[in-house]
Amino acid sequence: MPAAAPDAPESAQRDALERARRVRIMIFDVDGVLTDGRLWYGPSGESLKAFSVLDGHGIKMLMRSGVEVALLSGRSSAAVSARAAELRIRHALQGIEDKVAAFGALLSGLGLGADSAGFMGDELVDLPVLRRCGFACAPASARDLVLRHAHYVAAAPAGAGAARQACEFVMQAQGTLDAVLAKYLA
Amino acid sequence: MPAAAPDAPESAQRDALERARRVRIMIFDVDGVLTDGRLWYGPSGESLKAFSVLDGHGIKMLMRSGVEVALLSGRSSAAVSARAAELRIRHALQGIEDKVAAFGALLSGLGLGADSAGFMGDELVDLPVLRRCGFACAPASARDLVLRHAHYVAAAPAGAGAARQACEFVMQAQGTLDAVLAKYLA
Amino acid sequence: MPAAAPDAPESAQRDALERARRVRIMIFDVDGVLTDGRLWYGPSGESLKAFSVLDGHGIKMLMRSGVEVALLSGRSSAAVSARAAELRIRHALQGIEDKVAAFGALLSGLGLGADSAGFMGDELVDLPVLRRCGFACAPASARDLVLRHAHYVAAAPAGAGAARQACEFVMQAQGTLDAVLAKYLA
Amino acid sequence: MPAAAPDAPESAQRDALERARRVRIMIFDVDGVLTDGRLWYGPSGESLKAFSVLDGHGIKMLMRSGVEVALLSGRSSAAVSARAAELRIRHALQGIEDKVAAFGALLSGLGLGADSAGFMGDELVDLPVLRRCGFACAPASARDLVLRHAHYVAAAPAGAGAARQACEFVMQAQGTLDAVLAKYLA
Repeated sequence: MPAAAPDAPESAQRDALERARRVRIMIFDVDGVLTDGRLWYGPSGESLKAFSVLDGHGIKMLMRSGVEVALLSGRSSAAVSARAAELRIRHALQGIEDKVAAFGALLSGLGLGADSAGFMGDELVDLPVLRRCGFACAPASARDLVLRHAHYVAAAPAGAGAARQACEFVMQAQGTLDAVLAKYLA
Repeated sequence: MPAAAPDAPESAQRDALERARRVRIMIFDVDGVLTDGRLWYGPSGESLKAFSVLDGHGIKMLMRSGVEVALLSGRSSAAVSARAAELRIRHALQGIEDKVAAFGALLSGLGLGADSAGFMGDELVDLPVLRRCGFACAPASARDLVLRHAHYVAAAPAGAGAARQACEFVMQAQGTLDAVLAKYLA
Repeated sequence: MPAAAPDAPESAQRDALERARRVRIMIFDVDGVLTDGRLWYGPSGESLKAFSVLDGHGIKMLMRSGVEVALLSGRSSAAVSARAAELRIRHALQGIEDKVAAFGALLSGLGLGADSAGFMGDELVDLPVLRRCGFACAPASARDLVLRHAHYVAAAPAGAGAARQACEFVMQAQGTLDAVLAKYLA
Repeated sequence: MPAAAPDAPESAQRDALERARRVRIMIFDVDGVLTDGRLWYGPSGESLKAFSVLDGHGIKMLMRSGVEVALLSGRSSAAVSARAAELRIRHALQGIEDKVAAFGALLSGLGLGADSAGFMGDELVDLPVLRRCGFACAPASARDLVLRHAHYVAAAPAGAGAARQACEFVMQAQGTLDAVLAKYLA
């Protein structure tokens, strides 16, 4: 079971669960979070992105449980658009220079406060949003400074289950995970 | 040599061997079992899948020993069709929403009972078939709940030998492995 | 925080910081430094290269701090040109048989001495430039002989943060890193 | 420095050096030796192969030292042909069902005996050639039975330096490695 951090004290874990309980929208950075940070270039620029089937299942389970999911990326690629469309993620914000502004606009469009928003990021440029959202998440491979500002650190690698763990942690906090697991054991 | 699980008690290993002995058809999930779970997206969606040459050899050896092999996947891609054709896997079931129904139809078409079927899966959606088949297998990277329902857990990573180990385990249980090894030492 | 080498004595670390302080241009080899050394071939030859989003951020931060960045590669590919263009690296020297000559020509064109140049390489062919530049860097995966001639060894793997660490080390030595970090915590 | 095997007794290492000293042609299997064993499939079948720049440098150094290099693969792909052409490997034998026959024909065409031939393989199908050649090599990731028949086991992973280590071991045994290293330190 995912924990707030491998070596987090119990109070930090209770705080992370409390924050996750309030999440109405979970937002993911793309490169270094939904991927392992590798950028595949062909002759005409970036041409491929490697996503995780684990993360996809996690995002779909979380959405089905009633939590909105969004993407917030500084880069822009057709591969991300294709993946978002397949997962039916309606808010796939790409090519975002000012993540704080985009974060604010997304929330006000949905009538949500920052306390209702979770965000998983790994880079320095993600820090401003991580410090404003209610539930700040990072993969274990995030920059040191990012890890220090995260309420929840996923043990699984970025692009190979980190987002899935965050999704399950939110569902666990909200009491919606057990029903899903029970369905598969029926 | 593969074991039922790294820390399995002897009785669990005997049970796994007994179950593997009865296998007439071995069925594999694709993403997270025959691949490492990464999905490669280009501008128009999923465009590549990475299979293991080890697994291919294992599947071919198992088929030559007289055991049928099938694929059972929730997703669908031309890459899987191409790989299945190359390995001469006749039953490559893709885009399957209800894996239990497809599993049942496959077995009745072949006149086989669930006891004669092995299945290797890694995800929650694989649990219903894993709980119905005679020989439930998983890669070590499978979800915790899946591992708890597996009769056999491969130590090699998914997409890099997990399926190969399952194939060799079945052949070992059925007494057909040594003849193959001997051929290469003739 | 990156160090001159995991087990370097304090004097070696002071020497590395002193050398990094003088860097006006930081030059990177490509394969095995900005990538993990894998070459992706399709039917018509090399067709993909995998760069790291971490390294890209590091290079952009370093350039913004006033240090020039260049690439120096024995191979040549459109993927490298595309990545260099995106990062606005003006000097992307590819297909270079004689790296020492290209290194000298690059520096004299910019009116810089070898003491002002840092270079990160991993292979035997990089040794002549590494031995001439002021600040010799290598990823931990470099050949043994290269590691012995490096002033700074990055702990992060090649193609997954080694260059980023070198960029941050130069910025740390030059006192420009803290201002960047502070910006993201404002 | 590469050794005959991590835990090989001294006599085994002397034997490996003696065998490597006699090598006039070094032959490499492709999948699982020059690659990590992953097969990249697109809609129309296998479409990419990932080689190592390290192995390429090793093969070029070995050829320059006067040792012939060949490829011997059960599979066939345009990617291998492209890589072989770039490295100027004249004997790139692909789609080989009977590796022993191809091995014999290659050697007699060059007027060499099996004692003059090294071969690096990882699979059961490679065993017959490994048992006939003078210097049998394997990556550490090879099948157990293959490892037991190898005179030399490379510590570096397949597709990421295993072949390079074998090349350097042969050059070390033949006394041609130091001259190459010295050239880069001139």
